[in-house]
Amino acid sequence: MNELRAIVDDIQRLIAGREERGKVATYIPELAAVDPAQFGIAVTTVDGRQYAAGEADVPFSIQSVSKVFTLTLALGMAGDRLWNRVGKEPSGTPFNSIVQLEREQGKPRNPFINAGAIVVADTLLANHQPKETIGEIVQFARFLATDESIVIDQKVARSEQETGFRNFALAQFMRGFGKLDHPAEQVLGVYFHHCALAMSCRQLSRAGLFLAAGGRNPMTGRTVVSGDRARRINALMLMCGHYDGSGDFAYRVGLPGKSGVGGGILVVAPGRASIAVWSPGLNENGNSLLGSQALEMLAQRTGWSIFGP
Amino acid sequence: MNELRAIVDDIQRLIAGREERGKVATYIPELAAVDPAQFGIAVTTVDGRQYAAGEADVPFSIQSVSKVFTLTLALGMAGDRLWNRVGKEPSGTPFNSIVQLEREQGKPRNPFINAGAIVVADTLLANHQPKETIGEIVQFARFLATDESIVIDQKVARSEQETGFRNFALAQFMRGFGKLDHPAEQVLGVYFHHCALAMSCRQLSRAGLFLAAGGRNPMTGRTVVSGDRARRINALMLMCGHYDGSGDFAYRVGLPGKSGVGGGILVVAPGRASIAVWSPGLNENGNSLLGSQALEMLAQRTGWSIFGP
Amino acid sequence: MNELRAIVDDIQRLIAGREERGKVATYIPELAAVDPAQFGIAVTTVDGRQYAAGEADVPFSIQSVSKVFTLTLALGMAGDRLWNRVGKEPSGTPFNSIVQLEREQGKPRNPFINAGAIVVADTLLANHQPKETIGEIVQFARFLATDESIVIDQKVARSEQETGFRNFALAQFMRGFGKLDHPAEQVLGVYFHHCALAMSCRQLSRAGLFLAAGGRNPMTGRTVVSGDRARRINALMLMCGHYDGSGDFAYRVGLPGKSGVGGGILVVAPGRASIAVWSPGLNENGNSLLGSQALEMLAQRTGWSIFGP
Amino acid sequence: MNELRAIVDDIQRLIAGREERGKVATYIPELAAVDPAQFGIAVTTVDGRQYAAGEADVPFSIQSVSKVFTLTLALGMAGDRLWNRVGKEPSGTPFNSIVQLEREQGKPRNPFINAGAIVVADTLLANHQPKETIGEIVQFARFLATDESIVIDQKVARSEQETGFRNFALAQFMRGFGKLDHPAEQVLGVYFHHCALAMSCRQLSRAGLFLAAGGRNPMTGRTVVSGDRARRINALMLMCGHYDGSGDFAYRVGLPGKSGVGGGILVVAPGRASIAVWSPGLNENGNSLLGSQALEMLAQRTGWSIFGP
Repeated sequence: MNELRAIVDDIQRLIAGREERGKVATYIPELAAVDPAQFGIAVTTVDGRQYAAGEADVPFSIQSVSKVFTLTLALGMAGDRLWNRVGKEPSGTPFNSIVQLEREQGKPRNPFINAGAIVVADTLLANHQPKETIGEIVQFARFLATDESIVIDQKVARSEQETGFRNFALAQFMRGFGKLDHPAEQVLGVYFHHCALAMSCRQLSRAGLFLAAGGRNPMTGRTVVSGDRARRINALMLMCGHYDGSGDFAYRVGLPGKSGVGGGILVVAPGRASIAVWSPGLNENGNSLLGSQALEMLAQRTGWSIFGP
Repeated sequence: MNELRAIVDDIQRLIAGREERGKVATYIPELAAVDPAQFGIAVTTVDGRQYAAGEADVPFSIQSVSKVFTLTLALGMAGDRLWNRVGKEPSGTPFNSIVQLEREQGKPRNPFINAGAIVVADTLLANHQPKETIGEIVQFARFLATDESIVIDQKVARSEQETGFRNFALAQFMRGFGKLDHPAEQVLGVYFHHCALAMSCRQLSRAGLFLAAGGRNPMTGRTVVSGDRARRINALMLMCGHYDGSGDFAYRVGLPGKSGVGGGILVVAPGRASIAVWSPGLNENGNSLLGSQALEMLAQRTGWSIFGP
Repeated sequence: MNELRAIVDDIQRLIAGREERGKVATYIPELAAVDPAQFGIAVTTVDGRQYAAGEADVPFSIQSVSKVFTLTLALGMAGDRLWNRVGKEPSGTPFNSIVQLEREQGKPRNPFINAGAIVVADTLLANHQPKETIGEIVQFARFLATDESIVIDQKVARSEQETGFRNFALAQFMRGFGKLDHPAEQVLGVYFHHCALAMSCRQLSRAGLFLAAGGRNPMTGRTVVSGDRARRINALMLMCGHYDGSGDFAYRVGLPGKSGVGGGILVVAPGRASIAVWSPGLNENGNSLLGSQALEMLAQRTGWSIFGP
Repeated sequence: MNELRAIVDDIQRLIAGREERGKVATYIPELAAVDPAQFGIAVTTVDGRQYAAGEADVPFSIQSVSKVFTLTLALGMAGDRLWNRVGKEPSGTPFNSIVQLEREQGKPRNPFINAGAIVVADTLLANHQPKETIGEIVQFARFLATDESIVIDQKVARSEQETGFRNFALAQFMRGFGKLDHPAEQVLGVYFHHCALAMSCRQLSRAGLFLAAGGRNPMTGRTVVSGDRARRINALMLMCGHYDGSGDFAYRVGLPGKSGVGGGILVVAPGRASIAVWSPGLNENGNSLLGSQALEMLAQRTGWSIFGP
C-alpha cells in the first residue's frame, strides 16, 4: 500500500509537468471560470484507505458523473423495466446527438448520453415532485460518500437551465414520441440540478466505492445494490461512460469509468478501489485530458486493468 | 475443477431443452444447410485443462470470429499505426452499415465490423500476395490452436465471394476515399477466405487461450503477443465484439467475446480460461442465440465477470 | 371559360365517386374531428373570375399553406438576407425531421418544412411582439383574400401549443445553434397561430392570386410583391411545397403548390389562375389525397402545366 | 429574334469579363486538363433557329447531362414501371451519397443522382449486351442532335472506369439489395461510356429541343416522346437536375436543366427553346459556375422563367 501512495504521488508530479492541458468547457460562465491548472486525484481502496494528491479536496461540478448515481437510483425504483425506456448500447455519436433518437423513435441508446440520462430523471419523478427528487439525489450522494456537506451549486444549475437549449430539444423530442411521462421543464429541472452537484475527488472516490466492492460500501457496511447490479453498472460505465471516446478509454485504461464535462472522472477497479480524478481541461471527446492520462498511468502502474492478468 | 465439469454439463443439458433456437444465417447455401439443433461448448483453462460438451468436435464456419486472429496479425505487422486506418469505437450501427463510413470519410469505426476487418485484411497484404496471406492466416490459426488439421472451407469462401455485394460496396467505398492500398478483389479474397475458416469449439477455445493468459499460450509456452496487447485486444472484443449487441453482451455476460454469423462465439475470461460456444441459430443482432445464453449461465455460475468480485 | 366551369364540375363529380379518401390527421382533436367526406375546389383566374364546386365555402385549418404568406411577409422585411438563415433546397426527409438540422448546424433546408417556417416566424418577430405579429399575419391574409372575416381558430392554436413537442424540439435545437433570435415559446406562439388560420377554398384561391399574376392582385390592383419575387416564391413552392412528395407532385401536376396537414392545397398556375382544393384525408406524405388527384385532373384538362406546351 | 441574338452576345461578353471561374473537376486527368477559360452558349428555338456564341462548337464531356437521354430511352422501354426501381424526389444529399440508399433499401431517390442513373443503365441492359446498349445510346444522341459525328471519348470512359470506386460501391450496394439485374461491371460499363459522350453546345442544344417542343423535334418533324412524357422529364430536371443545388437553380433561373461535371448544362424553356451552356469551372455543388450565371442572365433578359408571366 505504500506502493499505491508512491504511485499517486508520482502521477501528481508527472501531471503537474504536462503543458498541454486541454480546453475548459465554456458553455456556461461558471465552468469557463475554473482555473485549468488544477488537478486532483483520490484512490479509495476496498479496505477503506484513501490515497490522494493535488487538489483532491476542491469541490468541482461533477456534471455527467452524477448519471452513475441517478442510474443506480432509477434501477432501484424500476429494475429491469428501465431498459424498456433506454438501451444499453454505445451510441456511436456525440453525447448530445439527436440523430439516433429520430432513427430509433425516441429511445436513447444508453443512460449516460444526455437523452438517456433525461429518461432516467423522468423515471425518478414517478413518485415525487421535482424538488423532492432533487433532494433525494443529494441525499443519495451524501449517503454514498458518507459526507453530509455535499451540495448542489445553484448558480451552475441556473446557468444550465438558461442555456440548455439542446437538452430541451432532446427532452421535447422524446416527449413527442411519448417517451417522457413528465413535462420537459420538470425533467430538466431534475437533470440540471443533479449535474450541478459539487464534489471533491475524495468525496467522489468514496461515493463510487460500492461499485468496486460488490455493491456494498465497505466503509459503512451498508449494502447499496446487489453484486449483480454493481457488475452491470460497471459494464455500462465501460461501454458508454466516455461518450464517443469509450472505446479509446477501455483500450488505454481498461477500467469502467464515467466522465463529466466539469473535468471529473470516476473510475472503478472491481475488487480493488474507486478512483476519482479531476482536471478541468477537456480533450476532443469532452473528457478530461489530464484526468484520462493520469488514469492510464495508474492502470499501468497498478496492473488493475480488467482485461488481463 | 470438478465444479467446472459440472457447470459445463449443466449448461449443455439446459440448452438442449430450449425450444427457441434463433434463425440460421441463410445468405449463402452452405450456412443455411447447417442443422440448427446443434450446440457445442469447450472451456480451456489457463492451466491447460479442457472441459467440453455437446458437439464440441464438429467444425463450423467461424466467420467473424476470425477477425480476432487477423487483428492480432495486423497489430504484429503495423503496431499502433493500424489505428490511423481504423478506429477503436463501437459503431452504434449494424455490422454492414455504410452510413458511418460516409460520415467519417472512409475510416471504419473498429476492426470487428466488416469495413474495419476489410482494412485489416488490406494491411495483411502489405508484404504478401493474397494466396500467401491466406496461407499465413491459416498457419496462425493452426499455431494458436496447436492443431495442424484446421482448414478453410473453400465452398463457403466461394459462395461468399459470389454473393458478397455489400462487402464489395464497403471495399470500393473505402477505396474511393483512398483508404485501401490494394484492389477490392484482392482484399476481399483474403477477407472471404479467413471468414471461411472451419474450426470446432475445442480448437477455437485453445486458439483464444493466449488472450486469457497475458499473451502467452500456456499449453505450448510460446508467447504470441505482449500482455499489454492481449489486454487491449480483449478491450476491443468487449467494446465491439458483438456488433450492435455488444452493450447487452457486456451487461449479461461481462466477458470480452467475438461472435460470428456461423453461430460461434469466442470468449475470454482473463486469467482464467478461453471459452468457445457454437449453435447456428442467431438472435436479432446476428449473434448466436443459444451460445449467448450458455455464456450468460457460465458467467453466472463461475463468477468470472470482469466487472466485479 | 365555360370550359373551366365544366372542368371544375367534372372534377367535383369524379372526386365524389372515389372510395379511397386517405387518413385525416389525428394529432390534435380539432383536426381528427373533421368529416373526411368533404371536398372543395375553387379556381380564381387572373381576370378575376371564380369557379368553385363542393364545400368551397367551408373554412378549414390551412396549416402549412400559411407558410406561403409568412414567407412573403418575411421576404418583405428581410429580403435576400433571409437566405442566410434558411436554405432553398428540398430536404429529402420528412417534414419534421431533425436529422438534417444536426448535419447542417441548425440551418433548415427551406422555409416550408417545419424548422424553416419556425425561422421565418422568428424573422417576423424582429419588429413586433408575438401578439402584434400574429395580428399582422391575419391582416395580411385578409388583405390578400380581400375578406375581413378571416380569423384564427383559437382552439386549434391552443391544441397545437399543448402537443407540439416536436416543433418545440426543432425550435430549441436551432436556438442551441444560435439560429433563433427569440425564445422558443414566442416563436412557436406565432407559428402555431398562423398555422391555425381558417379559410375556405374560395378565400384561399383569392389569397394566392398575386402569385399567379406577377405579384399584383388583379382584383384589387394592389401590388403585393415584385414579379421577380412572385416567380421565386413559386419556384420554392414547386421545389419544396409538398414535403417529401414534392417531386411526385411536380411530376403529376406540374404546378407550384403548398399543402397543409388540414387537407388544403394552394396551387399557382402562372399567368392563369390560383387554385385551392381541400379534402381532409391525407396520403402517406401528409398531403391531401383527393386534393392531389383533383389537381392532377385539373392540370391534365387545362394543360396548365408549367413544363410544356 | 434579333433580340435573342443580342442577348446571347451580351451574355458571352459579360461572362468573358468574369474573374471567378470556379474549379475544374480533377478526379480524372482528361477533365483536369481542360482549359477553364472556355465558355460556350447555344440557344435553339422551337422554330429551328440557333443563336450561339463563344466556344459553342468545341465538344466537351457531357457527363451527367447524358442522364437525360438515358432516362428518355429507359422510359421508352419500361414506361412507368421504371418508377418501381427509382424515385422522383430530390435527394437532399450530394450526388454520390450512399446514406440515402441504406435508409431506403437500395432504391435511389431519382434518376439523376449517380445511383439512380446506374439503375437506368441497368434497365437499358434488359434487351441488349453492354456494347450494343452503348451503341444505342450514341445513336440516340446523334438522332436527337441530327448529327452523326457525335462520339464517345474513349479515354474519358476508360479513366472513369479505372477510378470510379464510388460508383462501383453504389452499384454493388444496390446489387446487395437485389436492385440491379446485371453485374456491376456491365452496368457501369454502360454508365461510364454514356457519361463520356462528347458534344458541343450547338449539338447539345439541338438534342434537347424535343423537350421544349412537346416531345417532337421541330427541325426533323420526328416525335421522340409524347407531350406528357416531355413535360414529366422537364419536371424531373427541374426538381433534381442540379443535385443539391436544384432549389437554388430553380430560384435563380426558373427553368428545368441538367448539369454535368464537365461543365455543361442543358436547359429547357418549354415552348420556346433548348439552351446549352458550357464552362469547365464548377461551383461548390458541382455545377458550372459561369454556365449557371449565363443562364440566370438569359432567363432574366428573356423572361422565359416557367414561374411567372
